[in-house]
Amino acid sequence: MTDSSTLKVAIAQYACAPDTETNLATAERYIADAGAAGAQLVLLPELHNTRYFCQREDPAIFDYAEAIPGPSTERLATAARQAGVVVVASLFERRTAGIYHNTAVVLDADGSLAGRYRKMHIPDDPEYYEKYYFTPGDLGFTPIDTSIGRLGVLVCWDQWYPEAARLMALSGAELLIYPSAIGWDDVNDDQAEQRRQLGAWQGVQRGHAIANHLAVVTSNRVGVEADETGGATDIRFWGHSFVFGAQGETLAEAGEEPELLLADIDLHRTEVLRRIWPFFRDRRIDAFADLTRRFRD
Amino acid sequence: MTDSSTLKVAIAQYACAPDTETNLATAERYIADAGAAGAQLVLLPELHNTRYFCQREDPAIFDYAEAIPGPSTERLATAARQAGVVVVASLFERRTAGIYHNTAVVLDADGSLAGRYRKMHIPDDPEYYEKYYFTPGDLGFTPIDTSIGRLGVLVCWDQWYPEAARLMALSGAELLIYPSAIGWDDVNDDQAEQRRQLGAWQGVQRGHAIANHLAVVTSNRVGVEADETGGATDIRFWGHSFVFGAQGETLAEAGEEPELLLADIDLHRTEVLRRIWPFFRDRRIDAFADLTRRFRD
Repeated sequence: MTDSSTLKVAIAQYACAPDTETNLATAERYIADAGAAGAQLVLLPELHNTRYFCQREDPAIFDYAEAIPGPSTERLATAARQAGVVVVASLFERRTAGIYHNTAVVLDADGSLAGRYRKMHIPDDPEYYEKYYFTPGDLGFTPIDTSIGRLGVLVCWDQWYPEAARLMALSGAELLIYPSAIGWDDVNDDQAEQRRQLGAWQGVQRGHAIANHLAVVTSNRVGVEADETGGATDIRFWGHSFVFGAQGETLAEAGEEPELLLADIDLHRTEVLRRIWPFFRDRRIDAFADLTRRFRD
Repeated sequence: MTDSSTLKVAIAQYACAPDTETNLATAERYIADAGAAGAQLVLLPELHNTRYFCQREDPAIFDYAEAIPGPSTERLATAARQAGVVVVASLFERRTAGIYHNTAVVLDADGSLAGRYRKMHIPDDPEYYEKYYFTPGDLGFTPIDTSIGRLGVLVCWDQWYPEAARLMALSGAELLIYPSAIGWDDVNDDQAEQRRQLGAWQGVQRGHAIANHLAVVTSNRVGVEADETGGATDIRFWGHSFVFGAQGETLAEAGEEPELLLADIDLHRTEVLRRIWPFFRDRRIDAFADLTRRFRD
């Protein structure tokens, strides 16, 4: 932690291009801008090096993956060091032949690799065929220590699971961070349903903030990515990246265009709120064993 | 479940008087009104038979407690049967000398006692000295079967715990129900803080709806109850009872005055949503064991 309890964070919300070089250059630009704006942390969108390739299942796509550390972390580490900002990036990690992960990487402000988090919950539904590409993470729900604090980094589909947020909080995370790639299906869902989906996405994460008394920082990409499965259901990534405070209050929210979103988080609020409404004191851990069951049948 | 997937629910939001007879008569009137309005379920506020007595610690107050079944459940059961509506009531239960519970009781539409839930998480903070009065529940997070479905009944402070909602969902609850008594402190908290508290209260429960794909029905009382500790911090119960749908969308919300709040819940949405976004399929139960720990230190 810095001396002050205020942490200035930035979220880079943008559309991803078909080629990695363009995307890395975009990321570098946003990292530099975040540093220039005084941010101490900048979060990129999920899998920012490519289009969202999980729209289809194609063995050739594994070529996009790379080792960590590797060429992308080297470039991002340099950008982090030059900007003096902690970078939370999101990469398609090649661990070995046949084992790939959807991995968030934290580059500290000095350019060192602070740690990685391998997405634990892997989605799979039409247009989001992630189970084909990503082996579920095996590093658990473990926060990453950095020069600005202990970061509870999770990834996208994890955001629907209160268990993930809770385990990060129980591990001393001072902040929850979610890179995301989520969008609308304009063919099958009307506007009311799209609003409910966006509301649910923000709402469930607001819940994590409140239940754990932790701020939540969540990015998303924007732009339409054409259906590559031969169908007509493009994904329109809905943006609306946000920063919630430790009471769930909105500190900053983006629209549906590219943006560098900035917010000041008062990390001391966690201490204050946990004294006023001491949820952690009262958890009925004697009655929680069945949380490890699939269903109580 | 009824044949239709629509369940009409009612919440009775009102101020509680100093005497039990007045409060029971009020409850009976709301139950009759709910039945007349076509509701199949009506939820009363937490501890509706009395003022919120936990503002102070006084051994004489244990006189308010009664057995379940007992005189109050008899009267409420009659009201339930006459109105043809399932009643979720909230009583100060005397189990034996020295063991008292904050207990929700479900009276089925035929007047039978469908079951009880003993509040598992007991709060204790200035003006809410519940740990003095209530032994923590020992019935676990177990839903109650009724003629209108399996009800995930919890009580007030439980609403801050995603674990409680999840265990009810994992036990097949079709609906989450929370009687509450929560209010503002006009002396110590300014208006912005009061708004954040109300937002947090609703927000965390919206999160439970979303994460579990279950509607949430939550009552609260209204009215100011004078500080009986000798201080000046009255509790202004904030009302704002609500019904959220299974995507977290607001179906109905009360203001800060007495009201019989009505809403139609489409119970079939749970099935639809769990197919579209199948959260339950992917829970990393292999990595959740530490949810039974107090802290990972």
